Amino acid sequence: MCILLHMSVLAPPAVATAAVFGSTGLAGRELMRLLASHPRMRAVACAADTRAPARCDLVLLALPHGVSGEVGRELAGARVPVIDLSADLRGEWQYGLPELHRAAIAGARQVANPGCYATAALLALAPIVAAGLVEPDLVVDGKSGVSGAGKTPTERNSFCAAAEGIAPYQPVGHHHQLEIEAQLSEVGSGPVSVTFTPHLAPFTRGLLVTAYAPLRPGAGQAEVEAVLLGAYRGEPFVRLVDGVRTQALRGSNLCHLQAWVDPERSRVIVAAAIDNLVKGAAGQAVQNANLMLGLDETMGLPGEPAWL
Amino acid sequence: MCILLHMSVLAPPAVATAAVFGSTGLAGRELMRLLASHPRMRAVACAADTRAPARCDLVLLALPHGVSGEVGRELAGARVPVIDLSADLRGEWQYGLPELHRAAIAGARQVANPGCYATAALLALAPIVAAGLVEPDLVVDGKSGVSGAGKTPTERNSFCAAAEGIAPYQPVGHHHQLEIEAQLSEVGSGPVSVTFTPHLAPFTRGLLVTAYAPLRPGAGQAEVEAVLLGAYRGEPFVRLVDGVRTQALRGSNLCHLQAWVDPERSRVIVAAAIDNLVKGAAGQAVQNANLMLGLDETMGLPGEPAWL
Amino acid sequence: MCILLHMSVLAPPAVATAAVFGSTGLAGRELMRLLASHPRMRAVACAADTRAPARCDLVLLALPHGVSGEVGRELAGARVPVIDLSADLRGEWQYGLPELHRAAIAGARQVANPGCYATAALLALAPIVAAGLVEPDLVVDGKSGVSGAGKTPTERNSFCAAAEGIAPYQPVGHHHQLEIEAQLSEVGSGPVSVTFTPHLAPFTRGLLVTAYAPLRPGAGQAEVEAVLLGAYRGEPFVRLVDGVRTQALRGSNLCHLQAWVDPERSRVIVAAAIDNLVKGAAGQAVQNANLMLGLDETMGLPGEPAWL
Amino acid sequence: MCILLHMSVLAPPAVATAAVFGSTGLAGRELMRLLASHPRMRAVACAADTRAPARCDLVLLALPHGVSGEVGRELAGARVPVIDLSADLRGEWQYGLPELHRAAIAGARQVANPGCYATAALLALAPIVAAGLVEPDLVVDGKSGVSGAGKTPTERNSFCAAAEGIAPYQPVGHHHQLEIEAQLSEVGSGPVSVTFTPHLAPFTRGLLVTAYAPLRPGAGQAEVEAVLLGAYRGEPFVRLVDGVRTQALRGSNLCHLQAWVDPERSRVIVAAAIDNLVKGAAGQAVQNANLMLGLDETMGLPGEPAWL
Repeated sequence: MCILLHMSVLAPPAVATAAVFGSTGLAGRELMRLLASHPRMRAVACAADTRAPARCDLVLLALPHGVSGEVGRELAGARVPVIDLSADLRGEWQYGLPELHRAAIAGARQVANPGCYATAALLALAPIVAAGLVEPDLVVDGKSGVSGAGKTPTERNSFCAAAEGIAPYQPVGHHHQLEIEAQLSEVGSGPVSVTFTPHLAPFTRGLLVTAYAPLRPGAGQAEVEAVLLGAYRGEPFVRLVDGVRTQALRGSNLCHLQAWVDPERSRVIVAAAIDNLVKGAAGQAVQNANLMLGLDETMGLPGEPAWL
Repeated sequence: MCILLHMSVLAPPAVATAAVFGSTGLAGRELMRLLASHPRMRAVACAADTRAPARCDLVLLALPHGVSGEVGRELAGARVPVIDLSADLRGEWQYGLPELHRAAIAGARQVANPGCYATAALLALAPIVAAGLVEPDLVVDGKSGVSGAGKTPTERNSFCAAAEGIAPYQPVGHHHQLEIEAQLSEVGSGPVSVTFTPHLAPFTRGLLVTAYAPLRPGAGQAEVEAVLLGAYRGEPFVRLVDGVRTQALRGSNLCHLQAWVDPERSRVIVAAAIDNLVKGAAGQAVQNANLMLGLDETMGLPGEPAWL
Repeated sequence: MCILLHMSVLAPPAVATAAVFGSTGLAGRELMRLLASHPRMRAVACAADTRAPARCDLVLLALPHGVSGEVGRELAGARVPVIDLSADLRGEWQYGLPELHRAAIAGARQVANPGCYATAALLALAPIVAAGLVEPDLVVDGKSGVSGAGKTPTERNSFCAAAEGIAPYQPVGHHHQLEIEAQLSEVGSGPVSVTFTPHLAPFTRGLLVTAYAPLRPGAGQAEVEAVLLGAYRGEPFVRLVDGVRTQALRGSNLCHLQAWVDPERSRVIVAAAIDNLVKGAAGQAVQNANLMLGLDETMGLPGEPAWL
Repeated sequence: MCILLHMSVLAPPAVATAAVFGSTGLAGRELMRLLASHPRMRAVACAADTRAPARCDLVLLALPHGVSGEVGRELAGARVPVIDLSADLRGEWQYGLPELHRAAIAGARQVANPGCYATAALLALAPIVAAGLVEPDLVVDGKSGVSGAGKTPTERNSFCAAAEGIAPYQPVGHHHQLEIEAQLSEVGSGPVSVTFTPHLAPFTRGLLVTAYAPLRPGAGQAEVEAVLLGAYRGEPFVRLVDGVRTQALRGSNLCHLQAWVDPERSRVIVAAAIDNLVKGAAGQAVQNANLMLGLDETMGLPGEPAWL
């Protein structure tokens, strides 16, 4: 606010224009919602017209997987910064998890926004893997609200199929699995194995991962909490809480973490909750956009949950 | 049906009377519902009056944890068979999981009905632990509908707290953890470690466990499926399915299982779904009662889901 | 049971074969479920092949509106009895609400199964309209679970659209409106006007109508209750309850009614709850089939709710 | 924004302090949430200490019905403005529906915040009653999410009782009924009768009323829409929409309206959706507080839905 006030006295506020490709999907619609109240960025929704970038300061790609990558590669030649929310370019472009790669994102022209499960899993696990507290053989059990299954009506995301119960899906080979492994292997001192099973749970927004890791000798509750507190001290969007639940995060860009150690079984359990459409998609894209445009990283992003 | 018809011609059908202690709780109410259509058993609801057993053929204890054990111990001296649905006597009395202990249950006078999470976890894991396919270091991630949190109104099971999201609870030290470990250690060739985290999910009935185990060398998808198929061939209430989801089991005493092997990470994932109030509580108690009274094990128990 | 036992002694039980056309929709699937446990009827699922009837005792049409009527008209020439669950033939064929037309249904060869909203609205209102207790100017506010919107995935019945809120749809001109008016005009002494607004509510099964009618002078709580009690005394599937809620009826063919009189405003309010897929569709079709085939009307039909 | 900026340059921003009594209930918590981002008001939560007002600019009473009225009456002697969110003082104090009583609220010291159902019903009906388009004999069918039943855990608002179905409650004599009648009688040309039935529906936030009124001769769809458009032109928080649904309003202070005329039955149906905790409680209280303190009426209030 101070910065904004300051600038508004010295000079008319500069407002960046962001072209949103794919603004009718769930992530795209959320981008439009967030940008509507962003003090320094303005959405310019448009179809996937690659001549568009000439007229804007940033491109946000929220197109279907497959299509998004193609458009992204075409745009990579232009001088405009691009953030792709799809899975297509996560191996090629700068990985857009600010808590791990803040400086690199700020200097990048092409950023691949992380997957929703990967965001939660990495925020839960990266610090303790990096600190060498755990063996690199992890289990990640994910639970997502139905908005994670996309907007196109299908048998699976119909109300009568998804309501009033829970089901696992694609327990082997989900593309977020490799994404989590790749990132954790980078922060750790070698290859990390992640067994990952996502589940479809009957609510619209919200995502929880419960991550399980074997503790190395000497590591206990105190060490785990110290590492997490140290890693996230000063982070605007990650908090350690007592009583993690996805309901507390609807509409917010926060990630809530809670860790428990079972000393008898030498295991640490870390639960991470996010709103899959915000910190898991559109909110994180805006956070990356802020970094790339030199704005305050939190600008336009709801911190405290919109409501409980 | 044939048996019943036959008997009704030859002689008046013998109908056992079952005293249900605690018939107003969720499990007790479900017992009353099941017994209402049981062809050979009739509920005699009553308060926790220990003189009652003299007038019935079986006692079903669905009292709160703590109370149930006390009443159970008092009744153990009487000649009447007793099934306790609480956690109180699970270490002392015959453990009532028919798929593991059918013969012993049939010959027992006191049976402790398994916990809901334990039922699902054991059906998922016991055969592969017994067959030596996995290392004895397991992770069990449980998700239960809110009826698992009991009927007494609390902050946690209120609609506004439990709806529209998911939350873990008591990740270390839940009493089902020791129950699962004790049973798996018995079927395996030594101590088994189980890390167990339950979650509260926004539906009324249904429970899913997703169990993760490190595969031993040589074990793959084929071996796991062969072991599960072998273990449950002929079992009336356990089925291997493609597309496990708790919604398919509401009101039924069935358990649905599905297993996946991730060969690159040498891990097997087994998901088990039940209706927590039926196979996870009242249905399993009736199944045990049938065994103890010499009736057909499936009598009065809905196999095919009441509805989808 | 007595009848069945009696017959099974005298002669092998005759089992009628019912061809179910459209067995994969929600109503069709529910028909299959109910017939699976019907002691005297057996489903023969088949595509819409009009040569099929020669080989069965009854045809149940659960095809999409439009298609169902065409097939029904073709079948009307055959000697086989037909029940159509669609809206297509409700003006032409015998209207299949047993509580109003039991004898006529038993003697009919072609029966049009009522709509789900119409079933609840007519059970709530027909007796008090017939008794002349109310002015013929009614308001019916309907609330249906999402299974009422069909199985085909659409924008409207997707989880993210339908969950976590409520919405009215088609407040003017819903086809059940004319159906309710036509039936009430028949039982009353002249034309009856019904304003009807359905709402889509976030649960899978269940339907509630709240009906409002201006009381005629002299009519009060006592008269309304006496009329309803008189009308439904002996009815196997209609009950007056205290605390009507759709949850209590899942999987059951029952209709629960509750009436309140507001004497200061001279108005009666009648709420009627059913399971839209059972008494509102498949269960009522089986009830009609039982009548048409001379079987006990309740055969194969769950009375007491499957569970609460 | 301009005003704020202007002031922040000329003088330190004046921030009013609001004492919130009862900040742990659902409405109180929502007040705290809204005030947290209010640019000119700051919450001072405190217990029901009537000496508190001396130290604040406004008192917001979100105490339980019964208690709130007592505290309110005590505070009425002090010079501090008070807004009571309970039902206790709605007959005595200025009625706080800004769309009907803006000027009077701005000049009042004691304001009674309307009930949630009354807010929606009055916004739906007041203009067409005032314009004489309808006969004064109305039916209001209300549907509320479970947060409307309060935070204290009870049998009724427990998850297992409220989920997966719908139920009416207190169809005669709900205190909002008299509140709606009193207000409509004031805007109309004489006594208005309102038959009102609330229902408990399975979602946390959101409230819909479906109101039914007999049209007077000459009134049709065009007249109704013209009256509503005229009444709400310029209103910051009321919008006529196509496709009213409560989901679209979560976290927002907006009211969405949609009207349909059934010309054959001479009836108008108006549906009004709000977030019961915002426009139906805390948001409206902040709106009233803004008016009483001379601030921009919309300050600190989310207009566009927080998210869909």
